[in-house]
Amino acid sequence: MIKVVLLGSGNVAQHLIEVMKNVSSIDLVQVFARNSNQLNHLLPSSKIVSDYQKIAAADVYIISVSDNAIAEVSGKLPFDNRLVVHTSGSSDLSVLDNKNRKGVFYPLQTFTKGKKVDFTPIPICLETENEQDYQLLKNLGNCISKKVFQINSEQRKSLHVAAVFVCNFVNHLYQIGNKICEANQIPFEVLHPLIQETAQKILELKPKEAQTGPALRNDTKTIQKHLDFLSDENYTTIYKLLTQSIQNGNKL
Amino acid sequence: MIKVVLLGSGNVAQHLIEVMKNVSSIDLVQVFARNSNQLNHLLPSSKIVSDYQKIAAADVYIISVSDNAIAEVSGKLPFDNRLVVHTSGSSDLSVLDNKNRKGVFYPLQTFTKGKKVDFTPIPICLETENEQDYQLLKNLGNCISKKVFQINSEQRKSLHVAAVFVCNFVNHLYQIGNKICEANQIPFEVLHPLIQETAQKILELKPKEAQTGPALRNDTKTIQKHLDFLSDENYTTIYKLLTQSIQNGNKL
Repeated sequence: MIKVVLLGSGNVAQHLIEVMKNVSSIDLVQVFARNSNQLNHLLPSSKIVSDYQKIAAADVYIISVSDNAIAEVSGKLPFDNRLVVHTSGSSDLSVLDNKNRKGVFYPLQTFTKGKKVDFTPIPICLETENEQDYQLLKNLGNCISKKVFQINSEQRKSLHVAAVFVCNFVNHLYQIGNKICEANQIPFEVLHPLIQETAQKILELKPKEAQTGPALRNDTKTIQKHLDFLSDENYTTIYKLLTQSIQNGNKL
Repeated sequence: MIKVVLLGSGNVAQHLIEVMKNVSSIDLVQVFARNSNQLNHLLPSSKIVSDYQKIAAADVYIISVSDNAIAEVSGKLPFDNRLVVHTSGSSDLSVLDNKNRKGVFYPLQTFTKGKKVDFTPIPICLETENEQDYQLLKNLGNCISKKVFQINSEQRKSLHVAAVFVCNFVNHLYQIGNKICEANQIPFEVLHPLIQETAQKILELKPKEAQTGPALRNDTKTIQKHLDFLSDENYTTIYKLLTQSIQNGNKL
């Protein structure tokens, strides 16, 4: 049994609580939250503390709070030389206070409040200062996921940028597609199978091999038709830039 | 049994042949192709013709060739007043020659050569000049798919533009994510679950509700970190534009 204290009550924290409380090899000893109301549906109140002095003993302390608060929370812990990790994709290992052993336990996924997540396929990206702590985090990661990776701070930074492209920006393109459909009285559901297939494709093909469309074909006639059709200046700019980027990328 | 003659031998044509030859309620009478070699693995040579004069009688003629060739092929058909349709998302109904009854049978999906496609969930977007032809195309569509929609030329044009955003451009963002991973010795597979979840999410949530990330949170610190990290000017431009677009879209 790995004893865990989790600190945080936000979106990622709640998903971690949800999965960790249900795994037999993890003992979720306690959760620290300034606002315990948010956790009442997940845990008995006896397991929730909001006073740093009452934090229990554990093998690992997982700080899952907003990036800006990691340093403060780690600094207020009333003990030293224990393993304290954060769950942030965009924060360096070094934001954690020096008095404890540092680590990162970053589940690379987009978490939606209220939407239950299967952790099994989610990559858990780990970083520690020493091998022993790495083994502990690896064991912990394996309790909830089949995919555990050693990723250093520099790599994690690049992963986080890449994630913005393939998740946040991709979703924004879905939103533009949705708006174009709405403006033309077409149910967005018509595009669902295309969206799913586009995502499925890259499980088998490299994205470069999976690329299709007028930009790749250099089909200037269709591209011009599309630009004429798009009245929104913002959409036109995005269309032109991504078309050009596809064409440049293809030359390389 | 609906009698079909298909004209074309390219990517979409091959996928249509594959599905139509295996459906009991469709009689794929014949395929017309200038280059029959491409179809030998799909059909007996007795079913393939390359002479317009030898085209058999059918209920519907499906022209599935490149956009530029639709007008020419439809003009060369040696008969009139039959139902002739094309399969193009970006072509108007009017590109078909006037001597026959016109229609569109547009399967909205990204087709990859050699990757077998399940047509059942693929939206078939139909347009005809009269109700009787519409019923015929609807019956034909229902033979291969559960989703048949009536979509006029103007709507289809908008759908095609939307499809470029949610498929071609999305795939390009996958490619950028892949390149960032490669440059930092990270297997792209680490991003696969995130990509799948991002696509799955919009089956339940509207894209606007599903949006996450530093742009939406107005997290200027993380955005600046990401811009500092990206050395490629093209990526920086795309990052800035899409970040801004997310922020503007959110204000509306």
